[in-house]
Amino acid sequence: MPHLVLEYTGNLALDVQPTLLKLNQALVASGHFEENAIKARAVRLDNYLVGTAPEAKRAFVAVRLAILTGRTLEDKKQVSDLLGAALQKDQNWPKDLQVQLTVEVVDMQRESYFKLALQ
Amino acid sequence: MPHLVLEYTGNLALDVQPTLLKLNQALVASGHFEENAIKARAVRLDNYLVGTAPEAKRAFVAVRLAILTGRTLEDKKQVSDLLGAALQKDQNWPKDLQVQLTVEVVDMQRESYFKLALQ
Amino acid sequence: MPHLVLEYTGNLALDVQPTLLKLNQALVASGHFEENAIKARAVRLDNYLVGTAPEAKRAFVAVRLAILTGRTLEDKKQVSDLLGAALQKDQNWPKDLQVQLTVEVVDMQRESYFKLALQ
Repeated sequence: MPHLVLEYTGNLALDVQPTLLKLNQALVASGHFEENAIKARAVRLDNYLVGTAPEAKRAFVAVRLAILTGRTLEDKKQVSDLLGAALQKDQNWPKDLQVQLTVEVVDMQRESYFKLALQ
Repeated sequence: MPHLVLEYTGNLALDVQPTLLKLNQALVASGHFEENAIKARAVRLDNYLVGTAPEAKRAFVAVRLAILTGRTLEDKKQVSDLLGAALQKDQNWPKDLQVQLTVEVVDMQRESYFKLALQ
Repeated sequence: MPHLVLEYTGNLALDVQPTLLKLNQALVASGHFEENAIKARAVRLDNYLVGTAPEAKRAFVAVRLAILTGRTLEDKKQVSDLLGAALQKDQNWPKDLQVQLTVEVVDMQRESYFKLALQ
Protein backbone atom coordinates (compact mmCIF):
# COMPACT_ATOMS: atom_id res chain seq x y z
CA MET A 1 0.00 0.00 0.00
CA PRO A 2 2.59 2.60 0.74
CA HIS A 3 3.70 4.97 -1.98
CA LEU A 4 7.05 6.64 -1.57
CA VAL A 5 8.27 9.60 -3.64
CA LEU A 6 11.88 10.73 -3.42
CA GLU A 7 12.58 14.12 -4.98
CA TYR A 8 16.10 15.51 -5.16
CA THR A 9 17.60 18.60 -6.68
CA GLY A 10 19.77 18.02 -9.71
CA ASN A 11 22.86 19.52 -8.08
CA LEU A 12 23.06 16.40 -5.92
CA ALA A 13 24.64 13.37 -7.55
CA LEU A 14 22.32 11.02 -5.72
CA ASP A 15 22.79 7.34 -6.40
CA VAL A 16 19.12 6.70 -6.91
CA GLN A 17 18.62 2.94 -6.88
CA PRO A 18 20.68 2.28 -3.73
CA THR A 19 18.86 5.14 -2.02
CA LEU A 20 15.44 3.78 -2.94
CA LEU A 21 16.54 0.38 -1.72
CA LYS A 22 17.63 1.76 1.66
CA LEU A 23 14.33 3.59 2.04
CA ASN A 24 12.27 0.54 1.13
CA GLN A 25 14.33 -1.64 3.44
CA ALA A 26 13.62 0.82 6.26
CA LEU A 27 9.91 0.51 5.54
CA VAL A 28 10.09 -3.28 5.66
CA ALA A 29 12.13 -3.11 8.87
CA SER A 30 9.48 -0.92 10.48
CA GLY A 31 7.18 -3.93 10.45
CA HIS A 32 4.24 -1.94 9.15
CA PHE A 33 4.30 -2.82 5.46
CA GLU A 34 4.36 -5.81 3.15
CA GLU A 35 7.52 -5.93 1.09
CA ASN A 36 5.95 -6.24 -2.35
CA ALA A 37 3.38 -3.50 -1.69
CA ILE A 38 5.97 -0.76 -1.28
CA LYS A 39 5.97 1.32 -4.44
CA ALA A 40 8.82 3.83 -4.56
CA ARG A 41 9.98 6.26 -7.23
CA ALA A 42 12.67 8.90 -7.50
CA VAL A 43 12.34 12.16 -9.36
CA ARG A 44 15.31 14.35 -10.21
CA LEU A 45 14.42 18.04 -10.13
CA ASP A 46 16.11 20.09 -12.82
CA ASN A 47 14.21 23.29 -12.10
CA TYR A 48 14.19 24.32 -8.47
CA LEU A 49 14.79 27.31 -6.26
CA VAL A 50 15.42 27.38 -2.53
CA GLY A 51 14.37 30.73 -1.11
CA THR A 52 14.88 33.91 -3.10
CA ALA A 53 18.63 33.77 -3.72
CA PRO A 54 19.13 31.91 -7.00
CA GLU A 55 22.88 32.16 -6.71
CA ALA A 56 22.98 30.45 -3.29
CA LYS A 57 24.37 26.94 -3.23
CA ARG A 58 21.42 25.05 -1.87
CA ALA A 59 19.94 21.62 -2.40
CA PHE A 60 17.21 19.46 -0.97
CA VAL A 61 15.93 15.93 -0.81
CA ALA A 62 12.24 15.51 -0.06
CA VAL A 63 10.68 12.16 0.76
CA ARG A 64 6.93 11.79 0.80
CA LEU A 65 5.38 8.61 2.11
CA ALA A 66 1.67 8.06 1.54
CA ILE A 67 0.01 5.38 3.66
CA LEU A 68 -3.56 4.34 4.24
CA THR A 69 -5.37 5.93 7.15
CA GLY A 70 -5.35 4.09 10.45
CA ARG A 71 -1.77 4.39 11.67
CA THR A 72 -1.12 6.09 14.96
CA LEU A 73 0.85 9.28 15.23
CA GLU A 74 3.59 7.32 16.98
CA ASP A 75 3.78 4.87 14.08
CA LYS A 76 4.04 7.71 11.59
CA LYS A 77 6.72 9.46 13.56
CA GLN A 78 8.69 6.22 13.87
CA VAL A 79 8.48 5.57 10.15
CA SER A 80 9.42 9.14 9.33
CA ASP A 81 12.50 8.95 11.55
CA LEU A 82 13.50 5.61 10.04
CA LEU A 83 13.29 7.09 6.56
CA GLY A 84 15.26 10.14 7.64
CA ALA A 85 17.99 7.90 9.02
CA ALA A 86 18.01 5.68 5.94
CA LEU A 87 18.33 8.72 3.72
CA GLN A 88 21.50 9.81 5.50
CA LYS A 89 23.12 6.40 5.68
CA ASP A 90 26.30 6.14 3.60
CA GLN A 91 25.55 9.35 1.77
CA ASN A 92 28.31 11.80 0.99
CA TRP A 93 26.64 15.15 0.64
CA PRO A 94 28.56 17.83 -1.25
CA LYS A 95 30.50 20.01 1.17
CA ASP A 96 29.79 23.20 -0.73
CA LEU A 97 25.99 22.90 -0.70
CA GLN A 98 23.47 23.57 2.01
CA VAL A 99 21.36 20.42 1.87
CA GLN A 100 17.94 20.10 3.47
CA LEU A 101 16.42 16.67 4.03
CA THR A 102 12.72 16.31 4.75
CA VAL A 103 10.34 13.41 5.20
CA GLU A 104 6.59 13.83 5.17
CA VAL A 105 4.06 11.13 6.00
CA VAL A 106 0.63 11.64 4.53
CA ASP A 107 -2.58 9.69 4.92
CA MET A 108 -4.52 8.27 1.98
CA GLN A 109 -8.21 7.72 2.69
CA ARG A 110 -8.61 3.98 3.06
CA GLU A 111 -12.32 3.75 2.22
CA SER A 112 -12.00 5.29 -1.23
CA TYR A 113 -8.68 3.68 -2.14
CA PHE A 114 -8.74 1.34 -5.12
CA LYS A 115 -6.14 -1.38 -5.47
CA LEU A 116 -5.75 -4.25 -7.84
CA ALA A 117 -2.79 -6.59 -8.11
CA LEU A 118 -2.58 -8.29 -11.51
CA GLN A 119 -1.02 -11.78 -11.60
CA MET B 1 -11.54 21.59 -10.43
CA PRO B 2 -10.28 18.06 -10.33
CA HIS B 3 -6.62 17.36 -10.84
CA LEU B 4 -5.62 13.89 -11.96
CA VAL B 5 -2.09 12.52 -11.93
CA LEU B 6 -1.28 9.23 -13.62
CA GLU B 7 2.10 7.77 -12.76
CA TYR B 8 3.36 4.61 -14.41
CA THR B 9 6.59 2.70 -14.24
CA GLY B 10 8.70 2.84 -17.37
CA ASN B 11 8.62 -0.92 -17.89
CA LEU B 12 4.97 -0.56 -18.95
CA ALA B 13 4.44 0.56 -22.52
CA LEU B 14 1.38 2.56 -21.55
CA ASP B 15 -0.39 4.37 -24.34
CA VAL B 16 -0.67 7.60 -22.44
CA GLN B 17 -3.11 9.82 -24.31
CA PRO B 18 -5.81 7.16 -24.76
CA THR B 19 -5.44 6.25 -21.09
CA LEU B 20 -5.82 9.85 -19.96
CA LEU B 21 -8.85 10.16 -22.21
CA LYS B 22 -10.49 7.08 -20.69
CA LEU B 23 -9.87 8.39 -17.19
CA ASN B 24 -11.23 11.85 -17.98
CA GLN B 25 -14.26 10.33 -19.69
CA ALA B 26 -14.91 8.29 -16.55
CA LEU B 27 -14.81 11.49 -14.51
CA VAL B 28 -17.28 13.19 -16.82
CA ALA B 29 -19.52 10.11 -16.75
CA SER B 30 -19.56 10.19 -12.95
CA GLY B 31 -21.59 13.38 -13.19
CA HIS B 32 -19.53 15.15 -10.55
CA PHE B 33 -17.24 17.28 -12.69
CA GLU B 34 -17.33 19.81 -15.49
CA GLU B 35 -15.62 18.55 -18.60
CA ASN B 36 -13.28 21.47 -19.18
CA ALA B 37 -12.23 21.66 -15.53
CA ILE B 38 -10.62 18.22 -15.49
CA LYS B 39 -6.88 18.66 -15.59
CA ALA B 40 -5.00 15.41 -16.11
CA ARG B 41 -1.33 14.64 -16.62
CA ALA B 42 0.74 11.50 -16.99
CA VAL B 43 4.22 10.99 -15.63
CA ARG B 44 6.46 8.15 -16.72
CA LEU B 45 8.68 6.92 -13.90
CA ASP B 46 12.16 5.95 -14.98
CA ASN B 47 13.50 5.40 -11.49
CA TYR B 48 11.37 3.19 -9.30
CA LEU B 49 11.60 0.22 -6.99
CA VAL B 50 8.81 -2.03 -5.78
CA GLY B 51 9.77 -3.61 -2.47
CA THR B 52 13.35 -4.62 -1.78
CA ALA B 53 14.01 -6.99 -4.66
CA PRO B 54 15.39 -4.86 -7.52
CA GLU B 55 15.58 -7.87 -9.81
CA ALA B 56 11.86 -8.71 -9.42
CA LYS B 57 9.69 -8.01 -12.43
CA ARG B 58 7.25 -5.55 -10.96
CA ALA B 59 5.39 -2.52 -12.20
CA PHE B 60 2.71 -0.16 -11.02
CA VAL B 61 0.26 2.46 -12.17
CA ALA B 62 -0.82 5.00 -9.59
CA VAL B 63 -3.69 7.42 -10.17
CA ARG B 64 -4.21 10.32 -7.80
CA LEU B 65 -7.34 12.41 -8.08
CA ALA B 66 -7.50 15.66 -6.11
CA ILE B 67 -10.94 17.19 -5.67
CA LEU B 68 -12.30 20.04 -3.61
CA THR B 69 -13.64 19.21 -0.17
CA GLY B 70 -17.36 18.53 0.13
CA ARG B 71 -17.87 15.20 -1.61
CA THR B 72 -19.29 12.32 0.38
CA LEU B 73 -17.33 9.19 1.02
CA GLU B 74 -19.73 7.33 -1.25
CA ASP B 75 -19.04 9.78 -4.08
CA LYS B 76 -15.32 9.36 -3.65
CA LYS B 77 -15.53 5.59 -3.58
CA GLN B 78 -17.70 5.61 -6.70
CA VAL B 79 -15.26 7.86 -8.55
CA SER B 80 -12.29 5.78 -7.42
CA ASP B 81 -13.93 2.59 -8.69
CA LEU B 82 -14.80 4.23 -12.00
CA LEU B 83 -11.19 5.29 -12.46
CA GLY B 84 -9.97 1.83 -11.54
CA ALA B 85 -12.26 0.29 -14.13
CA ALA B 86 -11.28 2.85 -16.79
CA LEU B 87 -7.63 2.14 -16.16
CA GLN B 88 -8.10 -1.54 -16.91
CA LYS B 89 -10.29 -1.13 -19.94
CA ASP B 90 -8.64 -2.34 -23.17
CA GLN B 91 -5.24 -2.52 -21.53
CA ASN B 92 -2.89 -5.35 -22.28
CA TRP B 93 -0.60 -5.64 -19.32
CA PRO B 94 2.68 -7.48 -19.84
CA LYS B 95 2.33 -11.11 -18.83
CA ASP B 96 5.76 -11.28 -17.27
CA LEU B 97 5.30 -8.37 -14.86
CA GLN B 98 3.45 -8.15 -11.57
CA VAL B 99 1.42 -4.99 -12.06
CA GLN B 100 -0.25 -3.10 -9.24
CA LEU B 101 -2.95 -0.56 -10.00
CA THR B 102 -4.00 1.98 -7.38
CA VAL B 103 -6.35 4.95 -7.28
CA GLU B 104 -6.30 7.49 -4.49
CA VAL B 105 -8.83 10.26 -4.02
CA VAL B 106 -7.61 13.22 -2.00
CA ASP B 107 -9.37 16.35 -0.81
CA MET B 108 -8.12 19.84 -1.59
CA GLN B 109 -9.27 22.48 0.90
CA ARG B 110 -11.96 24.46 -0.87
CA GLU B 111 -11.70 27.66 1.14
CA SER B 112 -8.04 28.30 0.37
CA TYR B 113 -8.14 27.10 -3.25
CA PHE B 114 -7.33 29.72 -5.85
CA LYS B 115 -8.61 29.34 -9.40
CA LEU B 116 -8.59 31.60 -12.39
CA ALA B 117 -9.65 30.73 -15.91
CA LEU B 118 -8.10 33.03 -18.51
CA GLN B 119 -10.15 33.65 -21.66
CA MET C 1 9.42 24.20 5.77
CA PRO C 2 7.18 25.00 2.87
CA HIS C 3 7.38 22.92 -0.26
CA LEU C 4 6.11 24.45 -3.47
CA VAL C 5 5.46 22.53 -6.68
CA LEU C 6 4.71 24.37 -9.90
CA GLU C 7 3.37 22.22 -12.71
CA TYR C 8 2.71 23.66 -16.15
CA THR C 9 1.58 22.16 -19.41
CA GLY C 10 4.23 22.04 -22.12
CA ASN C 11 2.23 24.23 -24.50
CA LEU C 12 3.05 27.18 -22.27
CA ALA C 13 6.48 28.71 -22.75
CA LEU C 14 6.78 29.49 -19.09
CA ASP C 15 9.96 31.21 -17.99
CA VAL C 16 10.53 28.92 -15.08
CA GLN C 17 13.20 30.48 -12.90
CA PRO C 18 11.67 33.98 -12.83
CA THR C 19 8.31 32.42 -12.04
CA LEU C 20 9.69 30.37 -9.17
CA LEU C 21 11.42 33.50 -7.88
CA LYS C 22 8.18 35.50 -7.93
CA LEU C 23 6.37 32.73 -6.08
CA ASN C 24 9.07 32.39 -3.44
CA GLN C 25 9.22 36.15 -3.01
CA ALA C 26 5.47 36.16 -2.43
CA LEU C 27 5.93 33.53 0.27
CA VAL C 28 8.62 35.58 1.98
CA ALA C 29 6.46 38.71 1.71
CA SER C 30 3.59 36.90 3.40
CA GLY C 31 5.64 36.91 6.56
CA HIS C 32 4.87 33.30 7.35
CA PHE C 33 8.03 31.58 6.14
CA GLU C 34 11.78 31.73 6.49
CA GLU C 35 13.50 32.57 3.25
CA ASN C 36 15.95 29.69 3.14
CA ALA C 37 13.34 27.09 4.10
CA ILE C 38 11.23 27.61 0.98
CA LYS C 39 11.85 24.71 -1.35
CA ALA C 40 10.32 25.20 -4.79
CA ARG C 41 10.46 23.15 -7.96
CA ALA C 42 8.89 23.38 -11.39
CA VAL C 43 7.77 20.44 -13.48
CA ARG C 44 6.95 20.73 -17.17
CA LEU C 45 4.14 18.40 -18.19
CA ASP C 46 4.60 16.85 -21.60
CA ASN C 47 1.65 14.49 -21.34
CA TYR C 48 -1.57 16.12 -20.26
CA LEU C 49 -5.23 16.33 -21.19
CA VAL C 50 -7.79 18.91 -20.11
CA GLY C 51 -11.26 17.42 -20.28
CA THR C 52 -12.18 14.99 -23.03
CA ALA C 53 -11.40 17.07 -26.12
CA PRO C 54 -7.77 16.35 -27.03
CA GLU C 55 -7.92 18.80 -29.92
CA ALA C 56 -8.99 21.73 -27.71
CA LYS C 57 -6.36 24.37 -27.10
CA ARG C 58 -6.12 24.25 -23.35
CA ALA C 59 -3.37 24.69 -20.81
CA PHE C 60 -2.95 24.90 -17.08
CA VAL C 61 -0.58 25.92 -14.37
CA ALA C 62 -1.03 24.23 -11.00
CA VAL C 63 0.75 25.39 -7.87
CA ARG C 64 0.73 23.22 -4.78
CA LEU C 65 2.05 24.60 -1.52
CA ALA C 66 2.60 22.18 1.35
CA ILE C 67 2.99 23.72 4.80
CA LEU C 68 3.11 22.32 8.29
CA THR C 69 -0.16 22.10 10.18
CA GLY C 70 -1.06 24.98 12.45
CA ARG C 71 -1.86 27.85 10.06
CA THR C 72 -5.31 29.35 10.19
CA LEU C 73 -7.68 29.18 7.28
CA GLU C 74 -7.25 32.93 6.83
CA ASP C 75 -3.49 32.56 6.61
CA LYS C 76 -3.84 29.83 4.01
CA LYS C 77 -6.28 31.83 1.96
CA GLN C 78 -4.01 34.86 2.09
CA VAL C 79 -0.99 32.84 0.97
CA SER C 80 -2.99 31.20 -1.79
CA ASP C 81 -4.14 34.56 -3.13
CA LEU C 82 -0.61 35.95 -2.96
CA LEU C 83 0.67 33.02 -4.99
CA GLY C 84 -2.16 33.40 -7.49
CA ALA C 85 -1.30 37.07 -7.95
CA ALA C 86 2.44 36.34 -8.23
CA LEU C 87 1.75 33.73 -10.87
CA GLN C 88 -0.04 36.24 -13.06
CA LYS C 89 2.42 39.07 -12.61
CA ASP C 90 4.25 39.99 -15.84
CA GLN C 91 3.10 36.83 -17.57
CA ASN C 92 2.06 36.89 -21.18
CA TRP C 93 -0.25 33.95 -21.62
CA PRO C 94 -0.79 32.73 -25.18
CA LYS C 95 -3.89 34.30 -26.67
CA ASP C 96 -4.96 31.14 -28.43
CA LEU C 97 -5.03 28.91 -25.36
CA GLN C 98 -7.56 28.58 -22.57
CA VAL C 99 -5.31 28.74 -19.51
CA GLN C 100 -6.39 27.67 -16.04
CA LEU C 101 -4.38 28.75 -13.02
CA THR C 102 -4.85 27.00 -9.69
CA VAL C 103 -3.22 27.19 -6.29
CA GLU C 104 -3.75 24.58 -3.61
CA VAL C 105 -2.53 24.82 -0.03
CA VAL C 106 -2.13 21.52 1.74
CA ASP C 107 -1.17 20.68 5.30
CA MET C 108 1.73 18.41 6.19
CA GLN C 109 1.41 16.77 9.59
CA ARG C 110 3.84 18.60 11.83
CA GLU C 111 4.32 15.87 14.44
CA SER C 112 5.59 13.26 12.00
CA TYR C 113 7.60 15.62 9.80
CA PHE C 114 11.32 14.96 9.69
CA LYS C 115 13.71 17.75 8.82
CA LEU C 116 17.45 18.03 8.86
CA ALA C 117 19.55 20.90 7.56
CA LEU C 118 23.10 19.87 6.76
CA GLN C 119 25.78 22.57 7.17
